[in-house]
Amino acid sequence: MRLITLTTDFGYGDWFVGAMKGVILSIEPRATVVDITHAIPPGDVSAAAFALAACWRWFPPNAIHIAVVDPGVGSSRKAIAIRSGATTFLAPDNGLLSLALADCKTSAIRSLENPRFFSGPLSHTFHARDVFAPCAAHLSRGASFSKLGPALRDFHQLHWPEPQQRREGLDGEIIYLDRFGNAITNLPGDLVSKPGKVARVVVGRKASFPVREFYQSVPAGRAVAVPGSSGFLELAVNGGNASTKYRLRVGDKVTLC
Amino acid sequence: MRLITLTTDFGYGDWFVGAMKGVILSIEPRATVVDITHAIPPGDVSAAAFALAACWRWFPPNAIHIAVVDPGVGSSRKAIAIRSGATTFLAPDNGLLSLALADCKTSAIRSLENPRFFSGPLSHTFHARDVFAPCAAHLSRGASFSKLGPALRDFHQLHWPEPQQRREGLDGEIIYLDRFGNAITNLPGDLVSKPGKVARVVVGRKASFPVREFYQSVPAGRAVAVPGSSGFLELAVNGGNASTKYRLRVGDKVTLC
Amino acid sequence: MRLITLTTDFGYGDWFVGAMKGVILSIEPRATVVDITHAIPPGDVSAAAFALAACWRWFPPNAIHIAVVDPGVGSSRKAIAIRSGATTFLAPDNGLLSLALADCKTSAIRSLENPRFFSGPLSHTFHARDVFAPCAAHLSRGASFSKLGPALRDFHQLHWPEPQQRREGLDGEIIYLDRFGNAITNLPGDLVSKPGKVARVVVGRKASFPVREFYQSVPAGRAVAVPGSSGFLELAVNGGNASTKYRLRVGDKVTLC
Repeated sequence: MRLITLTTDFGYGDWFVGAMKGVILSIEPRATVVDITHAIPPGDVSAAAFALAACWRWFPPNAIHIAVVDPGVGSSRKAIAIRSGATTFLAPDNGLLSLALADCKTSAIRSLENPRFFSGPLSHTFHARDVFAPCAAHLSRGASFSKLGPALRDFHQLHWPEPQQRREGLDGEIIYLDRFGNAITNLPGDLVSKPGKVARVVVGRKASFPVREFYQSVPAGRAVAVPGSSGFLELAVNGGNASTKYRLRVGDKVTLC
Repeated sequence: MRLITLTTDFGYGDWFVGAMKGVILSIEPRATVVDITHAIPPGDVSAAAFALAACWRWFPPNAIHIAVVDPGVGSSRKAIAIRSGATTFLAPDNGLLSLALADCKTSAIRSLENPRFFSGPLSHTFHARDVFAPCAAHLSRGASFSKLGPALRDFHQLHWPEPQQRREGLDGEIIYLDRFGNAITNLPGDLVSKPGKVARVVVGRKASFPVREFYQSVPAGRAVAVPGSSGFLELAVNGGNASTKYRLRVGDKVTLC
Repeated sequence: MRLITLTTDFGYGDWFVGAMKGVILSIEPRATVVDITHAIPPGDVSAAAFALAACWRWFPPNAIHIAVVDPGVGSSRKAIAIRSGATTFLAPDNGLLSLALADCKTSAIRSLENPRFFSGPLSHTFHARDVFAPCAAHLSRGASFSKLGPALRDFHQLHWPEPQQRREGLDGEIIYLDRFGNAITNLPGDLVSKPGKVARVVVGRKASFPVREFYQSVPAGRAVAVPGSSGFLELAVNGGNASTKYRLRVGDKVTLC
């Protein structure tokens, strides 16, 4: 399999992503390289972890996923590769992979230390180009996973908020704001799919969102909570921007009642 | 043919486009997926319609074009596929395809209702991933167009302003502002290509643009109207940003005289 | 070889890049097209020249690189192709290629004038689609370089600041600001790699950056200068944005002492 995906905070304005692709295609010209996103806010490991977790399962099982948000580049943080089933993930060991792999068995973890798979002398600032891209490309050509470097027993986990059942309802929080201004919560979307259930999500004193099936279940401009495409409840405004209208932020507490 | 293009308002900051590509490549690993743009302003069906109309003819005739700006997702709006010659278009039936197909014979229209071509259970918010991407991928592998769902006789048309001939000149309007601040009008660019013709586009009381052949036909910083690459007259400032300088907006009336 | 890269100021919001890819894939459906960046600031030839220079060597040697920042499109500026080793570059002749080729032997230069390799009648505003994309696609299919148009002896050079040795240190300047707010200088990064050397970069009266090996060599929030991935010294703030914090700009004078 030669499908390699990229998730980074490198943006689209510089040449960083181009250099990664050049390295990959120099090693494996038949690779198909797919951008998930490069607009993760600089250094925001949680946002990258969520984006990767929300989409990697839609790719073929033998894809290779590179994710690089790496404020510790050049320091002693490890660069790792993890196998889960037929899928391979490569990332700095800073928690970036912990959401994607939260419910998965991982069969092997390696520290990327074999210079034979690097693209040249290591820079101090750009291991995406020097380490992650070439290691992924060599794997896609059939290099042995165990040759990447020494085995590790564990990898870094992000703290991730779990919803809490209280008397007054299910307490959760906003974990991601998307481009449309929809606020994705950590409340499971299927909780509310029972017909006839009347639910409502309250964000502090800011606003209240009746749970419905889709955006247009409420009139234009009105607040609504819908089961989102990533499996979680989303707070939205039909035809509008909930995040701007209600000044929602990641970390805001929400209650489903 | 396995070329599939994407035009959406999903932006580049989330994982939405990545999920679409994962679905396509899971079904047809040999597909070539090309982004036209994902930065259509959220919900702006007209802008997406114009972008698609301006560029689809530059692709091979047997390409498949997916366009998704879909504020009605999850409601009763139909998802459709249209054949015109060897080209296939997939989009929500909200007018998005009406400009691209304005001068084309369409040979068949289908409503996308066959769950065999979906990528799994339908979400309420993300039919690009659940319906449009997998239907396109199955078509690119050779699935029969007529199996997509029931035939339709018609599809939604956007209102599109046509220029009007008046005594004082040809009246039109601004239909699109591009990244360079050029304002694309609905006045045909070839009207003014006759040598020796002295033409001028007037935007209300805001500004006057002499018609020339290219940007540098006027000194730097000066207004100019040129036959643009999409076939329409464009209002520009040589080396500058006409949209900012003259506060131009989509819908502003223009007169060629 | 069928790898073609694109570096432009077209942005991601319009259909311009899509049209280029459509033209390329219509001529050579097997081409692999890679975006380096399309977010060069409009008209900024120097920024494009630097981005291309920083990354083209990471691509396979027989790649074809198209770079288009072209404020003079439609005027008398030439469109050129340059061969250096197995690599081909296509760009308007405005200096865009001069940094990438600064240390390279060029074996041939042609002016793109053969309409047989154009994609149709020339527009006055979009030679990326009408000239550069189709010429590159024909070359990738094996068209003869010498058929592109008449040979040229020279191409336009950008003025590029060289560092100057003074008594008080090495004088240079900031040449590029990246997405992370790092300021890339024209001071060579390897100058400071000698162990034990205590160096410091001073930006006018604004700030002083101790030279270290990587960002996290200093506490979070502190200024640091590191040898960057493009071979030059970079001014950074560990975990922060040096450009915003110290109001750095391209052209600011720096001294390594």
